[in-house]
Amino acid sequence: IIVRFGSSKIDTDLINRIERAIGQKPHRFLRRGIFFSHRDMDQILDAYENKKSFYLYTGRGPSSQAMHVGHLIPFIFTKWLQEVFDVPLVIQLTDDEKYLWKDLTTEKAYEYARENAKDIIACGFDMNKTFIFSDLDYLGTSTGFYRNIVKVQKHVTFNQVKGIFGFTDSDCIGKISFPAIQAAPSFSSSFPQIFNGKENIQCLIPCAIDQDPYFRMTRDVAPRIGQPKPALLHSVFFPALQGAQTKMSASDPNSSIFLTDTPKQIKTKINKHAFSGGRDTIEEHRKYGGNCDVDVSFMYLTFFLEDDDRLEQLKQAYTSGELLTGELKKVLIETLQPLIAAHQERRKQVTDEMVKQFMTPRKLAFEF
Amino acid sequence: IIVRFGSSKIDTDLINRIERAIGQKPHRFLRRGIFFSHRDMDQILDAYENKKSFYLYTGRGPSSQAMHVGHLIPFIFTKWLQEVFDVPLVIQLTDDEKYLWKDLTTEKAYEYARENAKDIIACGFDMNKTFIFSDLDYLGTSTGFYRNIVKVQKHVTFNQVKGIFGFTDSDCIGKISFPAIQAAPSFSSSFPQIFNGKENIQCLIPCAIDQDPYFRMTRDVAPRIGQPKPALLHSVFFPALQGAQTKMSASDPNSSIFLTDTPKQIKTKINKHAFSGGRDTIEEHRKYGGNCDVDVSFMYLTFFLEDDDRLEQLKQAYTSGELLTGELKKVLIETLQPLIAAHQERRKQVTDEMVKQFMTPRKLAFEF
Repeated sequence: IIVRFGSSKIDTDLINRIERAIGQKPHRFLRRGIFFSHRDMDQILDAYENKKSFYLYTGRGPSSQAMHVGHLIPFIFTKWLQEVFDVPLVIQLTDDEKYLWKDLTTEKAYEYARENAKDIIACGFDMNKTFIFSDLDYLGTSTGFYRNIVKVQKHVTFNQVKGIFGFTDSDCIGKISFPAIQAAPSFSSSFPQIFNGKENIQCLIPCAIDQDPYFRMTRDVAPRIGQPKPALLHSVFFPALQGAQTKMSASDPNSSIFLTDTPKQIKTKINKHAFSGGRDTIEEHRKYGGNCDVDVSFMYLTFFLEDDDRLEQLKQAYTSGELLTGELKKVLIETLQPLIAAHQERRKQVTDEMVKQFMTPRKLAFEF
Repeated sequence: IIVRFGSSKIDTDLINRIERAIGQKPHRFLRRGIFFSHRDMDQILDAYENKKSFYLYTGRGPSSQAMHVGHLIPFIFTKWLQEVFDVPLVIQLTDDEKYLWKDLTTEKAYEYARENAKDIIACGFDMNKTFIFSDLDYLGTSTGFYRNIVKVQKHVTFNQVKGIFGFTDSDCIGKISFPAIQAAPSFSSSFPQIFNGKENIQCLIPCAIDQDPYFRMTRDVAPRIGQPKPALLHSVFFPALQGAQTKMSASDPNSSIFLTDTPKQIKTKINKHAFSGGRDTIEEHRKYGGNCDVDVSFMYLTFFLEDDDRLEQLKQAYTSGELLTGELKKVLIETLQPLIAAHQERRKQVTDEMVKQFMTPRKLAFEF
């Protein structure tokens, strides 16, 4: 795993410091290196220890209705962060981005945003502490958001976004200016209704590592517009069923476990498609053992199996050859089936009215 | 005067057609060729004759508090259009543009927008039929505006704005995407509160010819986002006191007559700085006559003297040498002094409350 320029590995010292700050065991995503690198997380802990508030910002690009288990990673982790630190959370749904990049109408992108919001809400966020917003809507309802967008846009040149995002002269001007729209929620003045108009509330962004370029740009601009740099926690990529080297695709139903999959689909997909680190024959497997570093079922268990001891036992048993691929897959199936079923059950409870409430700009249960 | 590619000269036939449609003499700006070219004005007249509604859109970049008489030209003409056609009018104040291009804070640009709004309101617009908006504010209060902006931004490439506006790779992404913000008010769905959510209400834009590139771009994009192309009426440039070839500058108080000038300042500026088409000596002037084509006082009278016969008499007398430069300047001084004084008087009556009302998104006195 490559730690990007200017970011730091989340090491044992930092994890221990988090444990001391919150008085409980850090989330398995931290313990297992799924969130593996950070920027300025020590400053967030300084602030927290000095009783200074901060807020969380994460997001999703609603490119389709279909979300897979990998999409839950930042939300599962953000929910945990919100619970242990008790801070406001804003979740950006970049329906404008998806309109710009995909063959979608604004109406469709907005519809996907609202559908994805249901899956996000089903993760169990506290409505009193969480604001979910669609760019297409929130840009037109906030006095603060556009002002921050235009400030970022004034301080970033085409040369810079060309270098960072690889834009070319043939790209539409919407794509070229979009990075500012992902940057702006890093500044508390984009949410005057939450922060009582206060600027300079520090922001912490949990996100997948591929989003880091947006926030390196944001951190570069921040001091030039008089704002604090957002801190970051980066997660690794979530692997496709076919293996960590292959690209996961929302349009290929076999590339991952989707949040709408039935128990039977989960079983079939894992048995049929999950790349195995096992040997070609049972005899060889018993003799040489399996390879957990490439076995997708084991990787998925690293994300979703809560019990550390059990995970360690599985690792040893699989590596030694005692546990067969089919048996490992069975553990994953039995882990994901109830997890997905519970998610589907919670999602069913999410009403349009709840979506509306989460997505209404409002004061949250915090004083600023 | 150059008629741009794809635009048509406003000729006698068109002026006669306008006269028939509205049942009165067209404005002196039309009769005297100050609005000299158009795009699709015939379609607007078709619509009007078929009792189909349209709306007017014009604007101003609030780069400073100082506005000169030239800045009034589009507003004087737009007011007349609104009165004779009885249609809604939207006026865009591009405070975001000025923030992006100038060394200004967003606060200052917004303040200039509100100050300029007072001068615009002082032109006598009907509050029940006119919506004035600051981009910085309206973008954050409209459900329709940003959606249209992002639609335009999806359909214009960097290559295109580079070609049209001369942007380079060193320009900030805010400048690069700004043309979409000037384009979007050409579409009625940017103002759902005025047009009851209706798309496809035709738009007519009276503006100075230098704004045409924005709207050529807009007209190019319109059919691709399912919107009607806006029609246009173009005015000539307003000349600086120093002559039509020199560049007027809001930072040079001697380059024009400002709306805040005293009668004494008006007199001094015209006498001292208005470029003369007269001869070097009285004797030569009497013998050869003055040149109205380059005489700035005469040009200004073309804009501001209402009486056609008087203007024609002045032209003949000056050309023949009967009228001296000082005498012509005196006519201009006596025309502008009461005009500016009356403007200042009306501006004094414009309260912050009125500005607020004009700038509040609301239904106007039209049913859609």
